[in-house]
Amino acid sequence: MMNLMRRALVIGGSGALGRSMVEIFRDSWEVTSVDLRENSSAHKNIILNELQKIDDQCESCKRELTGKYDAILCVAGGFAGGSISEPEVFSKIQHLMKLNLFPCVMAGHIATQFLAEEGLIVLTGAAACFKDTTPGIIAYALSKTATHSLALNLATRQDIPATSTVATILPEVIDTPSNRDAMPNADFSKWANPRSIAALVKMWAEGVNRPENGSFAVLKTVNGQIVPEFV
Amino acid sequence: MMNLMRRALVIGGSGALGRSMVEIFRDSWEVTSVDLRENSSAHKNIILNELQKIDDQCESCKRELTGKYDAILCVAGGFAGGSISEPEVFSKIQHLMKLNLFPCVMAGHIATQFLAEEGLIVLTGAAACFKDTTPGIIAYALSKTATHSLALNLATRQDIPATSTVATILPEVIDTPSNRDAMPNADFSKWANPRSIAALVKMWAEGVNRPENGSFAVLKTVNGQIVPEFV
Repeated sequence: MMNLMRRALVIGGSGALGRSMVEIFRDSWEVTSVDLRENSSAHKNIILNELQKIDDQCESCKRELTGKYDAILCVAGGFAGGSISEPEVFSKIQHLMKLNLFPCVMAGHIATQFLAEEGLIVLTGAAACFKDTTPGIIAYALSKTATHSLALNLATRQDIPATSTVATILPEVIDTPSNRDAMPNADFSKWANPRSIAALVKMWAEGVNRPENGSFAVLKTVNGQIVPEFV
Repeated sequence: MMNLMRRALVIGGSGALGRSMVEIFRDSWEVTSVDLRENSSAHKNIILNELQKIDDQCESCKRELTGKYDAILCVAGGFAGGSISEPEVFSKIQHLMKLNLFPCVMAGHIATQFLAEEGLIVLTGAAACFKDTTPGIIAYALSKTATHSLALNLATRQDIPATSTVATILPEVIDTPSNRDAMPNADFSKWANPRSIAALVKMWAEGVNRPENGSFAVLKTVNGQIVPEFV
């Protein structure tokens, strides 16, 4: 039976959103988590070595992959604020490119060899940076707009199956412990629940209401439910 | 008299486009070149140490700056082709972020302290990546779309004088020795001449036909003349 299950690769599978993806998908999919730390809920873990160069991390990861994956989901990411006037802006950009852009590049690169026909790639962008300028969080903005550009380029399907779909989720605030700590007075009910995001993505992966190739979906929370708003 | 001259800071002043900027501006401006190598035509050179971290390079540079600059021009840049399917894609992105995005970040960061009222910032983007997806040159595309995003964020003028202007030039192919070597059979007369680009930018810097803040100008070559096409 195992071989008939659909297969998901979750990049960032030990993060706040990644853990929910693994939980929700593992119910009926074979799930491989790729991250710096193990997620014991995944069927298989590929642990990256942070001390390696990123090209080498990706090559090590590829050596542990087998067959084809029906969904390759990149839900890794991180945040830092600060404007261009800060002397640390360069380090912050390098850091957030590593946290936000490079895992998505890894997803795209792996997809060129390992994505199944009619497969789904999901990348994680950011609603705030898609719609407007955000000079107060410049490093984050650059890493996310580069990610949006990556998504558009991947969606040309020059390098992945012509039957596949690239979709980018654009969360506003995700309801994670670190976001609650950072914004203790916010109305958490308006934040996107990670399990609800995962359920939406699983539905897409299973072919229900799958977005058009190249779409960007702002994740709105309406009465506790995630409603994608395509932009 | 010297103190009455307008002052330009040219980041990438020893490159193919930078040398022309220095040549054209030095005629009536005080020109400081910032680069890894000296440009003896500049009035002053600030030589960056490639072995230093980029934050430290920028701080060293700032220690050599004095007063205010009427124009801060970033004309540094580099190119590499290749799609996301290449294992070297990660290194190429890191490399081109360093060559294309970081010098523009340096320009923006320096501008927050050293740009004069009614000053001009010029960043260098890329026409091909502004208008369309370019999956065959993915690393270049990501570095240039991040640069375009930087320009839009800078143009909010949250961190630079409210009277200043941010303009981004979007060259197609610039007529440089390395481009002639790479494309020996092309029609060079359709390429943008670096001296003509410099003359256009100098005109803007002197307040003639200066573009609106936040503009992007594709540099078209019409009968040997550069014609900016605002997009």
